Formats: sequence, C-alpha cells, structure tokens
Amino acid sequence: MNTGRLETFADGVFAIAATLLILNVDTHFGSCPPPPASVAGQLVCAWPSYVAYVVSFLTIGIIWVNHHTVMNQIDHADRTFLMLTVGFLMVVAFIPFPTRLVAEHIQDEGATAAALAYGITLTLTAAMFNAVWFYASVGGRLLRPDHDPAAVKGITRSYLPAPWIYLAMTLTALIDPIASVILYGAFALFWVVENSVFGRTRMRS
Amino acid sequence: MNTGRLETFADGVFAIAATLLILNVDTHFGSCPPPPASVAGQLVCAWPSYVAYVVSFLTIGIIWVNHHTVMNQIDHADRTFLMLTVGFLMVVAFIPFPTRLVAEHIQDEGATAAALAYGITLTLTAAMFNAVWFYASVGGRLLRPDHDPAAVKGITRSYLPAPWIYLAMTLTALIDPIASVILYGAFALFWVVENSVFGRTRMRS
Amino acid sequence: MNTGRLETFADGVFAIAATLLILNVDTHFGSCPPPPASVAGQLVCAWPSYVAYVVSFLTIGIIWVNHHTVMNQIDHADRTFLMLTVGFLMVVAFIPFPTRLVAEHIQDEGATAAALAYGITLTLTAAMFNAVWFYASVGGRLLRPDHDPAAVKGITRSYLPAPWIYLAMTLTALIDPIASVILYGAFALFWVVENSVFGRTRMRS
Amino acid sequence: MNTGRLETFADGVFAIAATLLILNVDTHFGSCPPPPASVAGQLVCAWPSYVAYVVSFLTIGIIWVNHHTVMNQIDHADRTFLMLTVGFLMVVAFIPFPTRLVAEHIQDEGATAAALAYGITLTLTAAMFNAVWFYASVGGRLLRPDHDPAAVKGITRSYLPAPWIYLAMTLTALIDPIASVILYGAFALFWVVENSVFGRTRMRS
Repeated sequence: MNTGRLETFADGVFAIAATLLILNVDTHFGSCPPPPASVAGQLVCAWPSYVAYVVSFLTIGIIWVNHHTVMNQIDHADRTFLMLTVGFLMVVAFIPFPTRLVAEHIQDEGATAAALAYGITLTLTAAMFNAVWFYASVGGRLLRPDHDPAAVKGITRSYLPAPWIYLAMTLTALIDPIASVILYGAFALFWVVENSVFGRTRMRS
Repeated sequence: MNTGRLETFADGVFAIAATLLILNVDTHFGSCPPPPASVAGQLVCAWPSYVAYVVSFLTIGIIWVNHHTVMNQIDHADRTFLMLTVGFLMVVAFIPFPTRLVAEHIQDEGATAAALAYGITLTLTAAMFNAVWFYASVGGRLLRPDHDPAAVKGITRSYLPAPWIYLAMTLTALIDPIASVILYGAFALFWVVENSVFGRTRMRS
Repeated sequence: MNTGRLETFADGVFAIAATLLILNVDTHFGSCPPPPASVAGQLVCAWPSYVAYVVSFLTIGIIWVNHHTVMNQIDHADRTFLMLTVGFLMVVAFIPFPTRLVAEHIQDEGATAAALAYGITLTLTAAMFNAVWFYASVGGRLLRPDHDPAAVKGITRSYLPAPWIYLAMTLTALIDPIASVILYGAFALFWVVENSVFGRTRMRS
Repeated sequence: MNTGRLETFADGVFAIAATLLILNVDTHFGSCPPPPASVAGQLVCAWPSYVAYVVSFLTIGIIWVNHHTVMNQIDHADRTFLMLTVGFLMVVAFIPFPTRLVAEHIQDEGATAAALAYGITLTLTAAMFNAVWFYASVGGRLLRPDHDPAAVKGITRSYLPAPWIYLAMTLTALIDPIASVILYGAFALFWVVENSVFGRTRMRS
C-alpha cells in the first residue's frame, strides 16, 4: 500500500483544520459589542482571536511540515499505520475548538479552563505524532529501504520531547494561564524559526 | 478512466466531513449554560459531543481506510461507478448532522429519534459501500487484472454483513437509545482494533 | 502547463461545496420549533432540507463527473482556461446558498424568489461549464492530440442545451415555484440514471 | 523534497478559503430584515455580499493561478520555503473574514474600518507572495535547472509592485472607503482580463 492517498487525506485534514480557524475570528468579532459600537471598536476587541489564529495556523502548519518530513522516510503503509494516522488527524482537527476557547476567554475567569483545553489538545497531538512515527520507524518497519539513518535519528530526537514540553506548558496553566498561552505561542515561533533558519542546513545532512 | 481523480474527490469529502465534526463540538459547547457559568462547567457539560466527535471521526476514518483497501483492487472507473461513489459520499457527508443530534439529545427525550437518525445514516452508508463494491467486483467488472482473489473475497466477506449489523443496532434504539449509541461506539472501536491488530497479518496474505 | 493542479483545486471546490451542504440541514433543523417540541418533530419538519441536500449533492456530483469527462479530453491548460475554470467554480461554490433558500422557503411565500435564485445559479453554472468546454475544444485548442472526436462531439451535444433547459426551469418558477423545484430534482435524477445506465456503453464508443 | 504535497496542501487551502466565502453570503442574508419581509427583499438587501463574494473568489482564484505559475518554475522545496508558504497561506485563509466585513458595512459608518481590514489583508497576502517568490528565485535557489529565465523575470516584474498597489488602495480607504473597495474590485478584474487575454501569448514566450 503506497502512501499517496494517505497524504492526500492528511493534507486535506490539515488544510481544512487550518482554514476553519478563520470561523473563530468571525465568531469572536460577532461576540464583541455590536453596532452602534463602531466596527473599528469590534476589530480592536477581537484582537485575541487574531493572535490565536496566527498561533494555531502556524502550529498546524508546523505539524504539516513535520508530517511531510516523516512521510519522506516512509515507504509504505499498513492498516495499523493508517488507523494511527486517523487518530492523529482526529486530534489535529480538534485544534480549532480550544483555539476559540483561548481567544474568547483569555481575558476572563475562563482563562485557566481554556488554556488547559488547548494544552491538552496539543499534548495529545504531539503524543499521537510520536505514536505514528515510532510505529513506522521502530525496527525500520515501514521505512524506505534507502531511508536516511541520520534523518530518522534526527526526527526521533526532535519529536520525542514534544509531548512532555506541551504537558509542562499545559500544567503551567494551572498556575498562570496567560503564561501558558504565551509559552504555546513562543513554542510555535521557536519551531518556525528553527525550521526556517536551520532547516536548510539540516536537509543537506 | 483511471481512478486518480475519484480518489482525490473522495478523500476531499472524507477529510471535510471528518473535520466539520468539530463544528458540532462548538455548537454543543455554545448551547451549554453560558457565562456567568464557568468555562470549565461548559466544557464538562459538552462531554457527549467529545465522545460523538471521536466515534464519528473514527467511523469516517475506518470508512476511508476501507475505501482505500477497495480502490487498491480496482483498475478503472466507469460512469456508473462514479455515480455510485457520489451516492456513497452523499451519505458519508451526511454523518456530521446525526452526530450532532446524538451528542445534544442523548441525555433528553430526543435520544430515540437522534439514535435512529444516526443509525439510519450509517446503515445507508454501509449499504452504499456495498453497492459500490459489488458493482465493481461482481464478475471482476472493474478489478485490476492482477487483483488479489483472496483480498477480494476477504473484502466481500467483511463488508456484506455491515448494513445488517448497523440495521440491528439502529432498531435497538427503539428499545434503548443509549444501548444503541454504545453499540455504535463499540462497533467503531472493534474495527479500529481489528484493523490495527489483524491488519498487518492480513495484508501479507 | 499540465492539468494536474487544476483538477486538485477543482476537486477540492467540488468536495467542499458538496460537503458544506450538510450545514444547511443543520440550520434548517435549528429553525424548526425547538424543544419542548420533540426531536422527532424537528426531524420531520426539516424534510425539505434533506431533499434539497440530495438534489444539490447529486447535481454537484454530476457536474464533477462531467468535469472529469471533459478533462479526459484535455491535454493542457493556458491561463485563460484557468480563469474560466475559476469563474466556473465560483458559481459551483455558490450552490449551497440557494439550496438553503429553497429548502427553507419552498413552503412559504418566499418560494418563487428561492426557486428563481436556485435556477439562476444552475443556469450560470451550466453556461460557465459550456464556456470552459468551448474555449478548450473549439478548433481543438487544448485537446489532447489523441482526443476521441466522437467523445468530443458527444460532450458538445450533451452540454450545449443544459443552460437553456435550466433557464426554462428557472422561468417556470415565475408561474409555479414548486413545479420548477420538482423539475430541478427530476433533471438531476435524469442525469444520474442517464450516466449510470448509458454511461458504460458510451465509454466504449 | 519535491513540491507535490506542498501543492496539494496549498490547493486545499485555496479551495477551502474560496468555498467558505459562501458562508458570508448566508450570514449577510440572515442579517437582512427577516420574515414577514419577503425573501426577495432579503435577496436584494444582501447584494453587497454577492459582489464581495465575486471579488474575493476571483482574487483567491488569481492568487491560485499565480501560485501555479510560480510553482512551475520551482524544482524543490526546503523547510524555509515550506514555512514561508504556510505564512502565505495563513493570510490567504484570512481573506473570508474582511470580505464579510466589507459586504456588511460598506453601507454604514463601519465602511472605513472594513475597507482598511480588507486592504491590509490583501497587502500582506501580496507581500507574503513576494517573500515566497524571492526566497525561491534569488540566485535561482529553488528554481528548476531548466527554468525559463524570461518567465522568471516576468514573474518578478509582475508581482513586485502588487503589495505597493494594495497599500495605496488601502490608504485610499482613509479618504473614501467606497472608492477603495471599487479599486479592489477593479484590480481583481484587471488581473482576470490580463490573464485571460494576454495569458496565452505570454505562455509561448
């Protein structure tokens, strides 16, 4: 079973989950004081949803780039791998919901619950990503015969800590939800920069 | 006519139907007692929609995996096959609607109607899947010249009972809607496990 | 410029436009008398939206199958062809809106306006389809060197009357909106049957 | 890393962003005086949302055609290029939100804020498009070995002024929002015509 259709389905879910994020901005804008308040005022009031949009879009984008990197090392899929991927995509497609919660409640008493929901979703996403990767890579089960051992080791080393880092950021929300939300954003930004600046070099290795 | 575009279109519908399920969670959360009730309280109140999300996402994922398996044996499409596939995708894309009904009404008197609507949709999905498969496979009409007869027989044996099983679960809703909903979930879980644990072995046959 | 990406984009729009139709059913169900009325009652009240869902899903499905047939004869795209396709997809993606209007207003005084909106959209869709096809086929401009002249003539003969038929059905709405809506459904059904029963024969020609 | 999956993901985002535009028409129609006002009256009242739908759909369509043209000259992607593309798609997927603002507020005092939001989004889109293109083309970094130098120069010459033109149109909104909205529409139309009429010639060069 080759991986072509798997990638089409996964890319579809990534693209839709990312694009649906804009509906959260719509909703948030709509929940801001309506006319006669000015549109400019509503646009300012909805600012957390722009930040949330950027952070979640970039996060999904990074997951997509990483999935791309992983699939480059994979030769074929079996049904277990397909089911693991379905489970992984299930948590990715969940991301728009806690994104909206964070945007709408970061400024009220719901901030802790919202930040926890966001963090748990991303922790599960990172954990499922690891499950997909380890199922494929342990013992070279589904890897291409000509896979790059350095790249495989690099992927393992990069992704293994991600669920723990997200778990730590999630638990931070119990103490200070705003701090945890800033950490989610900073972590996404770190990956963007890391990918952009160091990505070129690493791909030559 | 090769099957490439058919798969792109089908994967698109699968991906969108699955990803739209998150909107149900949004709606359910919104229908829970709003602020000043706490966000945490709303998150707890919306729990049936998380279960419904998981069950329907996995169900659509399993249908996608099975469609994948079927298309692997198929060489080309004719227009009848395309129209049957459109009909099949029409019922798949309907799944988010009864999913929401079940999530929102499983705890009130609407449970029977909701569980029936869900069951009828999945019974029709299974029946349409069989129609697609039998049109393609009877007499080897659209099968690859090098199709695997054991796999073809295996597919027929696996899918033939599915509409009847779903019909039985649907009728259960008339007696006990909660039992039928638990059965829908258990059946999805069974397929996930069956695919994951036995999938590898069978693919070697 | 080959046609691969054109088909991916088009299939994406077809798949999303078709799948978004389910949101209309959601909305219609929500506008039916809410609890304490029973869910069963709401499900019955929303019946026009199921019919509208089926008719529009099949209509988009038929357009997709026909687009498939057309693209099989086309060798490459130029930028004019891409822009015409964008215009064509723009009217296809509009279909969910009048679909909802028809479902919600076929039983009240808004029926004429709704049926006109639906008919105008489908008339434009058929006209744009013809524009795409004639741009590609006149003088064999974008056709494959090995295109099938009988198939090309068959496509031209099949599609040329469609805008006029839709226009006639649209004008019927001025006299009797319900008659025009029945005609839209009958025309979709005709194409489904025509494709399914006669499709196989014609593909051999 | 080849560009196949990049294009699938990008085409998915383009297709979804364009198709989601129809939800704005739905919303606008719903915000028009409801029954007992006539459906015909609501359809007339929602006219700005049809214009906005057409302008934004064509704009996204043109961006897609241009992305197509760019990718034809590109041989492979690195991770920096993928991240830039994610950023570019992030602003494309944002377009439906300001589109709705313009449609709903062009006739009230919110026109300036709405036209500014629309213009800023398109200015950022054009700027990100340039970032993607210059990253790929400067020094021929990611270009195909057999890229067409005339086409590369033509792309650079065509796209470089776009952010500045959009910025100028955006600033026009401060003086006269309706003028700026007309300019956005005229600019989209210009590209449609330019692509359609001159596209054929240029592709031969």
